[in-house]
Amino acid sequence: MHHLSPEMKSCIDECLHCYSVCLSTAMGHCLELGGKHTEKQHFTLMMACAEICRTSAHFMLIGSEHHKHTCGECAEICNECADDCERIGDMQECVEACRRCAESCREMAA
Amino acid sequence: MHHLSPEMKSCIDECLHCYSVCLSTAMGHCLELGGKHTEKQHFTLMMACAEICRTSAHFMLIGSEHHKHTCGECAEICNECADDCERIGDMQECVEACRRCAESCREMAA
Amino acid sequence: MHHLSPEMKSCIDECLHCYSVCLSTAMGHCLELGGKHTEKQHFTLMMACAEICRTSAHFMLIGSEHHKHTCGECAEICNECADDCERIGDMQECVEACRRCAESCREMAA
Amino acid sequence: MHHLSPEMKSCIDECLHCYSVCLSTAMGHCLELGGKHTEKQHFTLMMACAEICRTSAHFMLIGSEHHKHTCGECAEICNECADDCERIGDMQECVEACRRCAESCREMAA
Repeated sequence: MHHLSPEMKSCIDECLHCYSVCLSTAMGHCLELGGKHTEKQHFTLMMACAEICRTSAHFMLIGSEHHKHTCGECAEICNECADDCERIGDMQECVEACRRCAESCREMAA
Repeated sequence: MHHLSPEMKSCIDECLHCYSVCLSTAMGHCLELGGKHTEKQHFTLMMACAEICRTSAHFMLIGSEHHKHTCGECAEICNECADDCERIGDMQECVEACRRCAESCREMAA
Repeated sequence: MHHLSPEMKSCIDECLHCYSVCLSTAMGHCLELGGKHTEKQHFTLMMACAEICRTSAHFMLIGSEHHKHTCGECAEICNECADDCERIGDMQECVEACRRCAESCREMAA
Repeated sequence: MHHLSPEMKSCIDECLHCYSVCLSTAMGHCLELGGKHTEKQHFTLMMACAEICRTSAHFMLIGSEHHKHTCGECAEICNECADDCERIGDMQECVEACRRCAESCREMAA
């Protein structure tokens, strides 16, 4: 991965971490608890967040210039997901992963 | 898939078709021929096109409102990929799949 | 996609169809209804089925010999998913997509 | 990710690292150099390795029991990819990521 800048490597790591946390929290924690955690709007947002993180990492790894656009979208969805996880509560790991990923993606999108 | 509108179903089909054609053309046709076909810029664009099509289909299938943004980006990359395949030549199936997908995604993005 | 045999093209189509039906049914129908539909075991199986179908299609599209193993695994998970959707009921489209995909994948795996 | 065992977390990390290294090496290093690096057999193996790593991580993250089978397949493809990268040379980072991922996946598959 020596072709990639340190900033991009770091953003890839944040994306893959946020993907991992969102997906495992949705499929572990949320499905286990039910109620507000499996409301369609919230659960879909968590799955959308996992998918855009996975995709943004992919665009950076293949070296596409379009990573700027996927990272921009990633930053938006991550922040929305963080807000919604804070609203429902008890998902601090997810909130933190989303905030850090959003910040890193916003820099890559600039 | 009865929860999805006919327009969205049709766009999902175009995305998955374009994903299939771009990926199999890049990994079959382009790797086989080499030369201009494996130039970094062209090959990366084909792989980026395959990935954004796969992702846009996914966003529509999970029912995320953010499909509008992934579809918007998909339309752009598909048109760019179609132009590049026309420039290099001998990839008419890919050109057509990209143009149709771009048109369908632009409507979903509106 | 002229590099691919008619049998393989057909299997790719079944995989992408089953992926589409399982994912949209889980995220639309199942999340909407809740109860048995969002039990962890059932919901996870539907998401696993969607993912292995997506992956098996990918392996065939890139032309990897290892598609035999992913298709073998795909056939198993699809049949398990079909059984579970029959048990819970009201998911006939999913049952049919899974059975057809399983049959097609089993032939590719042989 | 507190629902996951330390062994599984570690395997997910190895899978996502190997995915990142294989994909970025193929799309950066190999496309840049051409020649043996873009031979169909080698390039396809690297892309198959990236994809099965991505998929195995996904199966562990969603909590599917079938991760045992995807991890078993992942171990096989990773070792094959490591051998092929050693044969061609100048891809030590990829060789190491593949060997470590194969070892970790083999334990999860047992």
